[in-house]
Amino acid sequence: MHTTSAAEQVSEVTTTALAASPFLAASSPRDRADLLLRLAQALEDNRGELVSVADRETHIGLGRLNGEVDRTRFQLAAFADMVTDGAYLDAVIDGPVGGPPPAGRPDIRRMLTPLGPVAVFAASNFPFAFSVLGGDTASALAAGCPVVVKAHEGHPELSELTCALAADVLPDGVLSLVTGRDAGRALVVDPSITAVGFTGSGAGGRALFDLATGREDPIPFYGELGSVNPVVVTPAAVAARGEEVAKAFVASFTLGSGQLCTKPGLLFLPAGHGLEEVLQQAVAEVAPSLLLGSWIRQGYVAAIGELARRSGVREIVPLPQDTGETVSPSLFTMSATALREAPVAECFGPSALVVEYESDDDLLGTLATVPASLAVAVHGEVEDDLASKVFGAVRTGRVVWNGWPTGVSVTAAMHHGGPWPATTAPLHTSVGAAAISRWLRPVAYQNVPDALLPPPLRRDNPWSVPRRVEGDWTRRPA
Amino acid sequence: MHTTSAAEQVSEVTTTALAASPFLAASSPRDRADLLLRLAQALEDNRGELVSVADRETHIGLGRLNGEVDRTRFQLAAFADMVTDGAYLDAVIDGPVGGPPPAGRPDIRRMLTPLGPVAVFAASNFPFAFSVLGGDTASALAAGCPVVVKAHEGHPELSELTCALAADVLPDGVLSLVTGRDAGRALVVDPSITAVGFTGSGAGGRALFDLATGREDPIPFYGELGSVNPVVVTPAAVAARGEEVAKAFVASFTLGSGQLCTKPGLLFLPAGHGLEEVLQQAVAEVAPSLLLGSWIRQGYVAAIGELARRSGVREIVPLPQDTGETVSPSLFTMSATALREAPVAECFGPSALVVEYESDDDLLGTLATVPASLAVAVHGEVEDDLASKVFGAVRTGRVVWNGWPTGVSVTAAMHHGGPWPATTAPLHTSVGAAAISRWLRPVAYQNVPDALLPPPLRRDNPWSVPRRVEGDWTRRPA
Repeated sequence: MHTTSAAEQVSEVTTTALAASPFLAASSPRDRADLLLRLAQALEDNRGELVSVADRETHIGLGRLNGEVDRTRFQLAAFADMVTDGAYLDAVIDGPVGGPPPAGRPDIRRMLTPLGPVAVFAASNFPFAFSVLGGDTASALAAGCPVVVKAHEGHPELSELTCALAADVLPDGVLSLVTGRDAGRALVVDPSITAVGFTGSGAGGRALFDLATGREDPIPFYGELGSVNPVVVTPAAVAARGEEVAKAFVASFTLGSGQLCTKPGLLFLPAGHGLEEVLQQAVAEVAPSLLLGSWIRQGYVAAIGELARRSGVREIVPLPQDTGETVSPSLFTMSATALREAPVAECFGPSALVVEYESDDDLLGTLATVPASLAVAVHGEVEDDLASKVFGAVRTGRVVWNGWPTGVSVTAAMHHGGPWPATTAPLHTSVGAAAISRWLRPVAYQNVPDALLPPPLRRDNPWSVPRRVEGDWTRRPA
Repeated sequence: MHTTSAAEQVSEVTTTALAASPFLAASSPRDRADLLLRLAQALEDNRGELVSVADRETHIGLGRLNGEVDRTRFQLAAFADMVTDGAYLDAVIDGPVGGPPPAGRPDIRRMLTPLGPVAVFAASNFPFAFSVLGGDTASALAAGCPVVVKAHEGHPELSELTCALAADVLPDGVLSLVTGRDAGRALVVDPSITAVGFTGSGAGGRALFDLATGREDPIPFYGELGSVNPVVVTPAAVAARGEEVAKAFVASFTLGSGQLCTKPGLLFLPAGHGLEEVLQQAVAEVAPSLLLGSWIRQGYVAAIGELARRSGVREIVPLPQDTGETVSPSLFTMSATALREAPVAECFGPSALVVEYESDDDLLGTLATVPASLAVAVHGEVEDDLASKVFGAVRTGRVVWNGWPTGVSVTAAMHHGGPWPATTAPLHTSVGAAAISRWLRPVAYQNVPDALLPPPLRRDNPWSVPRRVEGDWTRRPA
């Protein structure tokens, strides 16, 4: 296992990653899938200890942490399946066509190949699912890229423990760990690193994005930076089931103590919604909680204090007292007009803002000023004219109908991303099968004899991967 | 038609592009394909005038320019076919699964949607195929994105003429033109622009890349910057057909007067290859030519003068005299050892460098120091051990066997790209069907009722697009 916290030693770690690259890139689907499944098994075999350490370091609670271990194992297994299937290689075979160009052409075969060693910045709020063996790492290993993880300061012991378990499973250099901000910055500019995955704050992500794009040889930076994730409730939905929606909203924005990148930060309700009492009562029923760390609590307390002092903002529940340890949820309200004049940033922690709109135009005009989000939820009725207009007005990577942005399924159709400021790379997702494409680049082979082609492009298709041959998918020889 | 050369008026042009976005994004496959085919027809209808103006402005010659019009029409028609087919939407449908997460999930449907208005920087050397109606524009329009083209200064009249023809076909705001460097820079930082496609020099591309990534809201920048495109000839290939390879190499590096991004700039030959006379004779048979413009000629003359003065470099043919108008090809040689010590940059124009290697290790070690290229060609024999080692040593987007990097087929399997410094975006191609993916981002729809879904994701699949339903491609309802 290679770990360091010294910036000047980062290059030693990345050198071992670079040395592991050819082996990992050339590994068979079966061998690579096996590594991923053994990582999943190592998590399961050590679940008790891992969850216990994670809870001590993050206060997330045993229930959610066990669920997160389940999800992390599920992700590793899903990527193992993808590697075995081979469709992710996006293999394409266009046979030769006689005659002059543009129609005439040689034999051209293309597939995706691993970029090389990549850096993964672990998240504070998902110590398993977005950390050492989380989705970024799983997708990169599946792609055939060695990974150097920058551990999150919020759970150092868990990070070391997880990395040590992985080291028992993986060949040398395939997974390494660095700790501390200096080492993290050194990692992003290290010549051996070919791409970066990041989950975290907008400010931190932007600083690292600038380092990655400012390199002499710029590299892709996939930052998932979080967002305000507006929820829109139409008048028809308020009339049909306003109380139910209000209660579920409180459950969603306080889930995980509001420390989720999909927390619904804004609830758009028609003026005169009459739901304040329901909201107050639902918030009052939420027990105080410990946040991930004191730095999060301080940020939360400062942010809600600032919001409370802002002109046009009113507290729906009294501003919680700072107990110095646990925090209680906070809920504010303001008009759509006031929000248009000065947008509200994401606040990490159990806080949200009810935005009251006066008319359809007031709502749609305000939504157009809300920055792009990872997810937008719309509560409406099927025959709701306003709902389709809202669909057209929002900029987001995921639209949820009569549900909540929290809870991101790990599946092929999932997109967890969106335009800036939700992410730094609008074409990519950090959750679901498509996350693997971040670590792959195409290579085309022109008139290359079978013996020199990589296995997925050979005539006999030894790994039985699906290939688009003259436009049709097939696993047959070609 | 919207055109401007004033930086302060760029926002007026992009505003019309933004206004055209919803219409173009919502257009049916049939309507969008029709626009592309009508653009192709407009080129054909005005071929004579267009080619004549292009030849006057670029000196490329009627033969190649007519071929380029053919290719440009072929590209427009290919993207029309893609739009009609719908596979480019990468539609995925994962139905609901009961039970708790991670396996349990709601209905999730995902497809690609257009980014919004994009900027396209036209190239000097392809006044049709990579200019106003070239591959970047065709792929962006096919994706549903309005385009603002920054015309290349090398063919201003052709650019205006092509844009005017397009304006007769396209709705207002779908295609606009700006001219001049100031307007180009203003375009990259314009808030309405969501991505940039660029074909040009490394220095120019880097400057614009820095603008795009340095925005308050960074946007993707797809720069195709050219490269040295090494050609490796193994001893076995020299023995089998050295003369033929040498003659074809001269034909390739002088094609289009060496003004192609795929020009083979380096020819690796084993020391003692005995092909200098053949090379000299082949170069002597190449007629002097006019380059694209005086700025290219000056750059060429300066670059070959500098190379000739470089220690360790020897002229294979006498350094051509600067006639002040036409140029003749130049050919140099140096040892692999000398190249390792100081790499050579791309030189635009009919110039190349023969690199002599002493051994397999000398070759492979030197190749590892050559910057990533758009294409690498290997001339070898099928049973050639060295060839497979060369395949493993090079970093490129396309490997050509016993052929030449020049000539890039427009097809689904093509990849015209590669890691920095060949491009700014190693995952993407600017030639071939996959070029469309640069202008699209995924959106996932969670539990959204059929009536509110975009057509490609509706149960009855009204456009009959192929969709991955539970992992299998089908055009059936789902």
